[in-house]
Amino acid sequence: MSETIVTYVDGLQFVAVAASGHALVMDGDAEVGGKDTGSRPMELLLMGIGGCSGMDVVSILKKKKQDVKGLEIRVNGEKAENYPKKFTDINLEFIIKGKNISDDAVKKAVELSMEKYCSVKATLEGSAKISYHYRIVEE
Amino acid sequence: MSETIVTYVDGLQFVAVAASGHALVMDGDAEVGGKDTGSRPMELLLMGIGGCSGMDVVSILKKKKQDVKGLEIRVNGEKAENYPKKFTDINLEFIIKGKNISDDAVKKAVELSMEKYCSVKATLEGSAKISYHYRIVEE
Repeated sequence: MSETIVTYVDGLQFVAVAASGHALVMDGDAEVGGKDTGSRPMELLLMGIGGCSGMDVVSILKKKKQDVKGLEIRVNGEKAENYPKKFTDINLEFIIKGKNISDDAVKKAVELSMEKYCSVKATLEGSAKISYHYRIVEE
Repeated sequence: MSETIVTYVDGLQFVAVAASGHALVMDGDAEVGGKDTGSRPMELLLMGIGGCSGMDVVSILKKKKQDVKGLEIRVNGEKAENYPKKFTDINLEFIIKGKNISDDAVKKAVELSMEKYCSVKATLEGSAKISYHYRIVEE
């Protein structure tokens, strides 16, 4: 069990403190009465799946002795039109930068994260269809 | 579509920038090779569901002319023991502080969020069983 405390500040602004002790601000945009002082709650899901899978991929590629010079994950989420407007589709693009990176190593690393290890992906895929691809940039 | 960019920094540290432009740091704990400079990706899901439902509840209670002086959401998540260790159960406790707050108004606000409006809850409930309760503190 990991307790998270989310506290109302003002307007639509909330501060969340995670079990690890790290905090962040959430807020709504002006359209719904917020002041845009922090991320929307739904955005945290996309940031989370990117970070989770990124940690897996970088760890696996390091074990495979790949010379990774950069890793970027671009995450796009599509929401249902009607309330509760949940995510229906999430796409991840992994962009791996480095020298002589093995395509096979990247393919396996991404697949291992997506199909075996990434807890956020496994939690979100109960509702959203999750797709992914990767691209290697020689650097 | 809302693009999120997650960029690898070092160790297990990643910086995520959401479509709204707000950024946060994610990192692993020392046990897995991280440096604990930011939240774990899985923690973002619990912060997100707390913020999402909190925004709903505070908006609804204001519409119902309730004198809300404080709102705190305590979120606990339980993960599966085996990989991918997804969330199996998430519990939310809403603690509403104020003067002469109507129990009925709070009950309805929490139910409307949980059963109709909260996008994060609707996304996570595909995998995790989500339970909730509330408590009013006279202040």
